[in-house]
This record gives sequence, structure tokens and C-alpha cells, in this order.
Amino acid sequence: VIVGFVGLGRMGSGMARNLLKAGHALTVFNRTQDKASPLAALGARVAEQPSGAAFSDVVITMLADDRAVEDVMFGEAGLLRAMSHHSIHVSMSTISVDLSERLTSAHREAGQTFVAAPVFGRPDMAGAAKLFIVAGGPDAAIARCQPLFDAMGQRTFSAGERPADANLIKLTGNFLIASAIESLGEAVALVRWAGVDPARYLEILTSSLFTAPIYKTYGDIIAAERYQPGGFATGLGLKDIRLALAAADAEGVPMPVASLLRDRFLTLVARGDHESDWAALAKLAAHDAGL
Amino acid sequence: VIVGFVGLGRMGSGMARNLLKAGHALTVFNRTQDKASPLAALGARVAEQPSGAAFSDVVITMLADDRAVEDVMFGEAGLLRAMSHHSIHVSMSTISVDLSERLTSAHREAGQTFVAAPVFGRPDMAGAAKLFIVAGGPDAAIARCQPLFDAMGQRTFSAGERPADANLIKLTGNFLIASAIESLGEAVALVRWAGVDPARYLEILTSSLFTAPIYKTYGDIIAAERYQPGGFATGLGLKDIRLALAAADAEGVPMPVASLLRDRFLTLVARGDHESDWAALAKLAAHDAGL
Amino acid sequence: VIVGFVGLGRMGSGMARNLLKAGHALTVFNRTQDKASPLAALGARVAEQPSGAAFSDVVITMLADDRAVEDVMFGEAGLLRAMSHHSIHVSMSTISVDLSERLTSAHREAGQTFVAAPVFGRPDMAGAAKLFIVAGGPDAAIARCQPLFDAMGQRTFSAGERPADANLIKLTGNFLIASAIESLGEAVALVRWAGVDPARYLEILTSSLFTAPIYKTYGDIIAAERYQPGGFATGLGLKDIRLALAAADAEGVPMPVASLLRDRFLTLVARGDHESDWAALAKLAAHDAGL
Amino acid sequence: VIVGFVGLGRMGSGMARNLLKAGHALTVFNRTQDKASPLAALGARVAEQPSGAAFSDVVITMLADDRAVEDVMFGEAGLLRAMSHHSIHVSMSTISVDLSERLTSAHREAGQTFVAAPVFGRPDMAGAAKLFIVAGGPDAAIARCQPLFDAMGQRTFSAGERPADANLIKLTGNFLIASAIESLGEAVALVRWAGVDPARYLEILTSSLFTAPIYKTYGDIIAAERYQPGGFATGLGLKDIRLALAAADAEGVPMPVASLLRDRFLTLVARGDHESDWAALAKLAAHDAGL
Repeated sequence: VIVGFVGLGRMGSGMARNLLKAGHALTVFNRTQDKASPLAALGARVAEQPSGAAFSDVVITMLADDRAVEDVMFGEAGLLRAMSHHSIHVSMSTISVDLSERLTSAHREAGQTFVAAPVFGRPDMAGAAKLFIVAGGPDAAIARCQPLFDAMGQRTFSAGERPADANLIKLTGNFLIASAIESLGEAVALVRWAGVDPARYLEILTSSLFTAPIYKTYGDIIAAERYQPGGFATGLGLKDIRLALAAADAEGVPMPVASLLRDRFLTLVARGDHESDWAALAKLAAHDAGL
Repeated sequence: VIVGFVGLGRMGSGMARNLLKAGHALTVFNRTQDKASPLAALGARVAEQPSGAAFSDVVITMLADDRAVEDVMFGEAGLLRAMSHHSIHVSMSTISVDLSERLTSAHREAGQTFVAAPVFGRPDMAGAAKLFIVAGGPDAAIARCQPLFDAMGQRTFSAGERPADANLIKLTGNFLIASAIESLGEAVALVRWAGVDPARYLEILTSSLFTAPIYKTYGDIIAAERYQPGGFATGLGLKDIRLALAAADAEGVPMPVASLLRDRFLTLVARGDHESDWAALAKLAAHDAGL
Repeated sequence: VIVGFVGLGRMGSGMARNLLKAGHALTVFNRTQDKASPLAALGARVAEQPSGAAFSDVVITMLADDRAVEDVMFGEAGLLRAMSHHSIHVSMSTISVDLSERLTSAHREAGQTFVAAPVFGRPDMAGAAKLFIVAGGPDAAIARCQPLFDAMGQRTFSAGERPADANLIKLTGNFLIASAIESLGEAVALVRWAGVDPARYLEILTSSLFTAPIYKTYGDIIAAERYQPGGFATGLGLKDIRLALAAADAEGVPMPVASLLRDRFLTLVARGDHESDWAALAKLAAHDAGL
Repeated sequence: VIVGFVGLGRMGSGMARNLLKAGHALTVFNRTQDKASPLAALGARVAEQPSGAAFSDVVITMLADDRAVEDVMFGEAGLLRAMSHHSIHVSMSTISVDLSERLTSAHREAGQTFVAAPVFGRPDMAGAAKLFIVAGGPDAAIARCQPLFDAMGQRTFSAGERPADANLIKLTGNFLIASAIESLGEAVALVRWAGVDPARYLEILTSSLFTAPIYKTYGDIIAAERYQPGGFATGLGLKDIRLALAAADAEGVPMPVASLLRDRFLTLVARGDHESDWAALAKLAAHDAGL
């Protein structure tokens, strides 16, 4: 399969490298070109424009947010126009349900296919090809992409025929992670005040009922108060909660914990933690407790 | 070891049975005597009064709340007076930090030892001797009780020398579970409206980042909307969030998610869900979304 | 002054009537024409299209939401194209800060002037010419409109030169009202359970520290539990809280009470109270308390 | 009427002075005696012990919290024992519903009468005899106290026969004030970011729908960011919200805004604002918005 890959940030770089390792022919594009050099060294062609990645069977986008995806896809020089009939656009970014639906329509009208395949996992998991991929779109298209998914992730889940469902699953999944972080932060602030060692506390929890990776990953960060550098930034956490709330608002669903998280993230960003790991929710909980 | 066991509810019955199976001599007491019969059939002595369980090396209490523990411990006919010097009281109930501290003092003054050893696990885990036990108290006393813990649980964690720390760990642990349930409930209400099958949704989550038992246990209940009968009742959930908030208030720690949970539980109870499983938080989220 | 008036809902009808009474020449438009008949009887010309109201010195719009304003203003047959140079558009609807800014630019480019003049007051106050008007825009334009404002309101406040500031003041004002209603609802649910008569309770409050009209107006509704018909509908309340939160989000300001109100309104709408008075927040508080 | 007056803080001093001015014979007690000197200069007898104020027809207590009231009332040397039959205890402090009920019983058993008469108003209003008094208790007792109330306040409201109802009205009233402050704080943080002058903003609000004294009083403080010295301290605000929540919890009533306020007050206190005016809720809102 000939693959175009747009977006070489912390996640995208690792994913593109794994595709190259698996033997796929890759044309890559990144807004700042220096990110492309290490991949060129591994055999990737480097495009000067997003549309330079269009002459492929499958074009993968892995970008920061809706705006970045809209910028490369739409407009006169956009990928949508440049992609050939019958090619597939696989959007692996965490984007809104709304944009996913607009891309589904736009590609259909252009005789192309849209697959949404957002991922769970932080940069280290992207590098180790251990991502969890949630793919939504036509079965045939997903089957065609499966070798690519296998090169990047440890497992692919099917979200069914509607691409936007995959995005909703991803967004609500991130909401669940943020919620677990916030609650951990509150609990740790309390046990700290009571004189309990946070590391011992988290060891007990993650060895009993809270064995999931998220509790271990974030428990370690919180116990060590190591919010810099951020594996996943507070600013991105805020973005994802906004998108989850937007999806909920469109369906008329109240989500009080999501509302609370949005306010907490806004506070973190307002106080200068835009780039900190989103586990900084626990830093805020500690700060509000006078620690 | 000669053991007294007070409180034969859904949790206590299974725990007492496992102690008998392991060969310990047991005197049991329950306020309503019929709960004691199955254990008598297995060889337990049945006491007519709480104090009848006092003539033991170790007295275990497994009761519903602070009031129930105060009722059996204090007063003229209470266990505290009846227990001999050098005996150990192991409180396995989920009680307040405050009561735990009062019991620590009272037993010390009486020349006895107090150990707090609350448990994580639902009735099925109690029956299967799969509980997680968090034990706080003097090392020597905990070592003496270890064979008993081994008969009831799959693992014992040390919370250190202060019994109340074990209670705080238990209470904040229950807060974390309730928080995960609430967030799951909000997320499932949203994906339901969007037309995603909840069972598939939860299957994806619990096979990727949310592998912890709590997500599987409560995800199953929520997907099936099976809130009756309750393994752990809403009324008890409310009690535990109240105790977590009381501990936080005493330390001056704000816990916004805990505050939100308290209000949600109050609403559930006000609407008649006192006896439902505390996963009914998700039922409320669905109801508030018009489902 | 020749006036065009677009939007004859519960608020707009009263306002248009007061302009006619004050002797202004009025051309009115409403999507459903039957609303225009009573005004025609009082001497208003009735336009068949929004653009029929364009040939005026001042065009007033009083519509339900952003979409309604966009529909009449923009597009081939929109008011913007039809209005002459030097005419003034006075938007009295409760619209978003964002749309207000877009209208400011669009009218400037068309050589016209935009004034935002949202109002505080319910339909009875609109009918009695007792509205409070908050006007933002160029001083000269506001001065020109003052006779119109005097015919519709009891007082006009200047929000300064930027029209969007007037909209922000209106939106945050509605947020403050909704917040007062929610708190009253919670307090009344509590005193009801305690056996205190709500009417006596509210009489004490509104005769002492809470003398403002909003406490009297909403206190009466809540004490009488008279949520139908709605003077200002729950659906509109939800809209306004959404717009306040959107403005806050754009500025990076967390507003926890506004977040809570959004969730409460979503719940009310999800349960069928879209058309009830927004004081139904208190109905929800009572319901959640088991009343 | 012979009056004993216990508690000469910022509120009590002004109230006692007004009783003296009205010609009542007063015996005063304060824990720190220097507060009593100015009143002695005006003719008050100064007691060395709380019980020294007991030989009166009416004993008024105006103390900081439940504990202070319990300290002076109960115990061997307490007022309850020292007061004669047929005398009246008028508790004007903001105390809990629970303590009010306990005092009602205790005085009844001692052949005495208990009246709860908490007040609305800050120290300046206490000094100017402009308090609003909410009196609950037997009609005859309240009638007997009316001349005293008239000397201290501008108006007395009857809460009916049950003293605790007066306390509940006071506590929920304070909740409503705190809620208005919090919402004002959030709104002002937003308009500040948008470049609107807070003083002009508050002028518009308090001249239109928000004419109540509380909006004027707290609007001025918030616009000027003048949180020191505190007319009513954050620590007392926290206490009152706790008591309102305790009353609500006892009745099974969820109060989400009260829960939010409790967390905000805890945060303020944890960060060192214990002594600031409770309007510092707005300082926290500004801080969380990055102002």
C-alpha cells in the first residue's frame, strides 16, 4: 500500500516510523519540515505541501485539532481536491464528531472513502506500536487499512460503519481518563494532608481494584508531581473535553463531571499550565487544598 | 486463634464462612439471629449478645455504619467493656476516620489493641475469599491477624501504624469507584443517544485502557441496566461519600467531584433508589438525559 | 424616524406597539404573518419579506436566537443587502458576542451602522414600555435611536462604543438571574422539607436583603409552582447560558455556576420542560429532593 | 426589661450599644474583657463569667458559632443552669438547626423559653440599628422581646413557633447571598477579560434588575477588589454553608450550588483568605481566570 502521512508531532512521528519499519512506502508532510528529516533518513519521501501526500492509496492524517485538519483538507490546495478517486482518508487525530461527519460527506461526494481511526495511547505507546485503534467506516476500507493499523497498534476495535462513532468513543474515552485523573488528584490531596504517603497509597490502589494502565500511568505522575514535560498537554485535554461537551450538547445530554473538568482545565490554562501534562489537574487539586 | 465475629450481612456472612473453612474457632453474633444459623451449621458458636463474642483473641466487626459499630462497642453492655486485656479488635467495616480514631484511643485506654482492616470487594468476592484488605495498626497485631486475613482475602496491604489511615484509604477508594461509575454513566448516556451500542462501547474501553475490574463490573451493570438487586447499595454509597467529605472537611481539602457525587446520591435516594446498586448513578445520568 | 421592525414574538409585539403609540412610522415583518395583523390595525405597514423592512432610517431586529438573526440579515435576500447606506441596524435580540462582532464588521463594510441594544425584562415589561435597554455602539447612532428606546423602555444604559459589550452584559445578566433562580430553588426545596411555608419564606427574604425584582418575580412563581405558561422559556434560558459560556470560553474564563446551570437546563429540556418558564430550575430542584 | 448580653464581637458590640441607648439595663459578658469597656462606659454592668449575665429577664447570645454557644450554655458553669425559671434565652447567633433544636429542648426541660432570632445585616447595619431579625419561638416570648428587637433592628419577621425554622431561614439566606457573590464574581471575571469596566457593569445591573442591597454591597467590594478588612469573614461563610448543607443532608435535599460554594470557601481558606471578606469568592474567580 502506498501511504501518505500528514502530521509528524509526538504521536505521528512514532506512527510513521512504524509504518516504514513494516515496509510501507511513505510520503510524509509536516508543517515544520525539520520533523520530517529523521523519517527521510529511514526512506520516506518528503512532500513540500499537504497535497504532495495525496498520490497514495491511503492518506493518514494525525494532527493536533479540528483547525489543523481543516487547513490541510479543505481549500484550493487542500488534500481533498488532490486525492484521487477510490483513495481512502484515515483520520487518526482526535477531532470533533461534527468535523468527522463533514469529512464523511465531503469524501463521499468526491468519490473517496473516509475512515476515522483515532487512537488511545501516549507518545511512548505510539513509538512502541502499542496503540489501541478505534476504527469507524466501511468494512471494506477498514479491512484494506488493517495492515497499516497492525503496524502502528496492538489492537484495532471496530466502531461500526459510521466514522463519527469512532470519534465519539475516543472523545468520551479521554473524558473518562480526565475524570479518573481529577478524582485521583482530589484523593491524593486528601491523603497527603492526612499524612499518608502518596506512593504507598497509589501502590495499594493499583494493586487491587484500580489495575488499569491509566491509574498506573497517572498515579506515578501524580505521586512524583512530575507534570513537565507533558506526554499529553493540558491544552489538548481542554480541547477534548470541549469536543465531548459539544457532542453531548448536540445530543442534549448533561455531563456534570465533564463540565467540571472543562472549568478545571480552563483554570490550569489561565494559570500558565497550557503545556503541562494534563495530569496537572492533580496539581490544581493540591494547590486548591493549600498544599 | 479464637475469633469473635460480629455482623453477618452480605459481606460478613461470606467472610465468617471462610474463617470457619480455614479451621478457626468462631463465635458469631448478628442482630437478627436467623443470619447466624447457616454458620452454626458449619460449627460456629452463636452468641446472644455482642459481648458474647468478646471472649476471643481477636474480635472482628463487619457492620453497616458508624452507628452500628458504636452500638455494639460502647455502653454498659458493649464489647469494649467485655473484651479482655491484650485482645485485638479488628474493625473491617467501612467507618469514619473520626470513629476509627476514637476506637484507637478507647482500646488503648482499655489495654486492648485496635486494628482497622477495611476491605475492597463486593459480596461475591467476600464469598470467594478474594477480598483486598487494607490493614492499619501495630505491626505485631497485624501479624497476629494475618492468618485470618489470609482466610478472607487474596491480599493484605499495610496502611502503616495508624488505623485511621486504613479507613481513609478505603473511603477515598470508594470515592474513586463512585467517580468512575458516575463518569461511565455520563459517557454511556451520550453514546446511547448517538446510537452506539453500550455493550460494544464498554467492550472497547475495558479491552484497552480501562482494564481494571471496576470498569468491567460496573460497565456490565450499566450496559445491562441491571440495578436490582444491589451488590452495594446506593444508601451505603451515600454514606461513604459523606465520610470521605467529612474527612476532607476536617483537613480543609476541597473535593469537587466528591461534592457532586454526594448530590447525585442524595437525588437517587430521594427518588427511591436507596436499595439499588450504587451503579444507579448511571441510571440517573440516563434519566437526566431523557433516556 | 422611519422604523423597520423584524420579529413579533412575545417581546417584539409589545415593543412594536409602543413604538406605534409614540407616533413612529413602522414597517413590521414576522415569519408567521398572523402576528402582524394586530399591529397593522394600529397603523403599521406589513412587509412580506424581511427586506421589506429595510427602507427605513433604523431597522430593529428582535428575534429568538443567532440563527434567526443570521437568516434575516445575511444571504441574497437578506436585510444587510437591502438596507441603505447610513441606516442603522439595532439588534435588540439576545445574541452571541460572536455574531454581534460579525454584524459590526458586516455593517461597517456596507457603510451602515450597527448598534446592539439588548433588553432586560419579561413580556409584561415589554408591553408596559418598562424594559431596561443596554445599548452599545457609536454615540451618535445611539443618540439617534434614543427616542425609540424611550418609547420601549424605562431606562437606557450605555455599554460604550463596542456593540458586543452590550451583548456580553445582557448574557451575563441572564446568567445572574438564572443563578438566583437555581439557588432559590435549592433553598425552597430545603425549607419545604423542613415544614416552612415557601410563601412566608420568600416574603421574609424579599422584604429584607433580597428586594430586587428578580427575587420577587421568581419567588412568586416558585412559591406557587406556576411554571406554565412560561414568560421566558427554559429553551431560551439554555440558549443564553450556552452563549455566556461560549463568550467565557473564548476569553478563557471558568464559570462553574454557569456550567452547572447549563447541565440543569439540559436536564429540564431532556425531560420535556422546553417550553416551561426557566424558573422550572426550581421544579427540578424540588424533584431531585423527592418533593 | 433586664437584659444579659453575651458576645461582643463586631456584631454584638453594636447591638448591645443600641440596647443601652434605648434605655435597657444591660449586663454584658465577653470572653476577652477589653471588648466590654466601651459598653461599661455607657452604663453596662460587666460580668466576669457568662453566668454573670444570667440574672435577667432575657439573655441574648451573639456568638461566632455552635461551639461558642455550647461553651457558654452547657456545663456546670453554663448559662442554662444559672438562668432562672421563666427567663428567655434569645439566640441571635447564626447557629445550626441541630443546636437550635437541642437548645429548645434543654430550655423547655429547665422551665425556660428559647427564642431563635438570627439577624441579616453586616456590622455597619448592626451599629445603625438596621438589622433584619427573623424570630422563631412562642408568640408570647417574641412579643416580650419585641422592644429589644426594635432597639436593634429595622424590622422583625416571624418564623413561627419553632425556633429552628428561624435558623434555617437565616442559613439559607446566607447561602443565597454567597451564591449571588459567587455568580457576580464569575460574571465580573468574564467582563473584565472582555475589557468592560466592572464599575460601569455593576452600575448597570444594580440600577435595573439587581437593585437589592446585596448586589450593591458586594458589587462595590468586587469592583474595588477591597477584600480586607472583612465585614463578614470567609471563615464564617464557610461555617454557614456547612450548616446549610448539614440541614439539607438531614432532610435528604441535594444542593449543588451550596456544594460548589463549600468547595470554593475551602479553597479560599486553604490559600490564606480565612479572614478576608467572604466576597473574596470573586477574588478566587478572578484568580482562576488568570486575572
